[in-house]
Amino acid sequence: MNILVILAHPDPASFNYAIAERICDQLETDQHTVLFHDLYQMDFPPVLPCSEIPRDAALDPQISRYCDDLVAADGIVVVHPNWWGMPPAIVKGYIDRVFRPNVAYRFIEGDAGEGIPVGLLKAQAAIVINTANTPEVREEMVFGDPLHRIWKDCIFGLCGISEFYRLIFRVVITSTPAERMMWLDDAATLTHEVFKPKES
Amino acid sequence: MNILVILAHPDPASFNYAIAERICDQLETDQHTVLFHDLYQMDFPPVLPCSEIPRDAALDPQISRYCDDLVAADGIVVVHPNWWGMPPAIVKGYIDRVFRPNVAYRFIEGDAGEGIPVGLLKAQAAIVINTANTPEVREEMVFGDPLHRIWKDCIFGLCGISEFYRLIFRVVITSTPAERMMWLDDAATLTHEVFKPKES
Repeated sequence: MNILVILAHPDPASFNYAIAERICDQLETDQHTVLFHDLYQMDFPPVLPCSEIPRDAALDPQISRYCDDLVAADGIVVVHPNWWGMPPAIVKGYIDRVFRPNVAYRFIEGDAGEGIPVGLLKAQAAIVINTANTPEVREEMVFGDPLHRIWKDCIFGLCGISEFYRLIFRVVITSTPAERMMWLDDAATLTHEVFKPKES
Repeated sequence: MNILVILAHPDPASFNYAIAERICDQLETDQHTVLFHDLYQMDFPPVLPCSEIPRDAALDPQISRYCDDLVAADGIVVVHPNWWGMPPAIVKGYIDRVFRPNVAYRFIEGDAGEGIPVGLLKAQAAIVINTANTPEVREEMVFGDPLHRIWKDCIFGLCGISEFYRLIFRVVITSTPAERMMWLDDAATLTHEVFKPKES
């Protein structure tokens, strides 16, 4: 399978990087083709320009290639920290610019844009892995974990990917090396289970 | 009062611009001092760099000035479209970079970052105005309106602003000129009521 792995964290020494690396290793062990998009390293430009609003807009060739990568994915894994109940801006901009009409979803004919779009992505499943420094009880009680519905319903559900998995590792900032090792194992195990390895 | 008005939309001819303009007019009529931040026009750079992660990071002078503007605000108004249950990336990056520790909130002493932060913003109230092309019933049923808790709880609540108001204008794409005129009136009325004019 072609698996697109998207990572966003400003620090290459971060635990987010370690997670993404471990996932890529697991996917390669399982003989998948991995396309790794490290948005910070790629210097992804997150600001959607006015010219990209029309459904049939002419795209920057680089954005066009990212759209092709998304369309080609049989599975998607996203790794990022929870900042303010949302992904970092660079991920938000990747969604704004790459999850385009006629790439990730389309409107039914005659729809001005107010109707129910049809998901176009062929990926069978998506995994989102987040790190957080907010304890679970406080997250649920005070903030309500908006990230869950954002990824599950607003993004992947709308684009036709209903098989959705998520792991949240917390509290990273006070975690022990043993905890982080266990979390990396959890990430690898989930990846292995969701994207079954090719039978030899 | 000093009111900070933040706008983000790539199209200067958009209804979002009209809303922000009407709000600024109302605030000036009510004799407030308006600071208008049009993030697209300002070309705000939304990607938080690694160097800005430390709480006591040396900041780019421009980011520092935006922090000062936020701290000085007695009230905040944000206008943006609902894209994927989130603000546009340029707004997300403004939150990531300007709503900093020791600017918008602080951790209690000895806290490694896992504890309950204390809000620092002195603004008495915040208004968020969103445009959407998703009908209300579908928004509530399918997506759950993550934007509401994001702004109310994850951002303004955490930073100490508990007086929160929100308007959602929908469905913009199929709206009539009369509807849009009414929505502009609604935005002006709310602004006037929340930020009471100075007594003459």
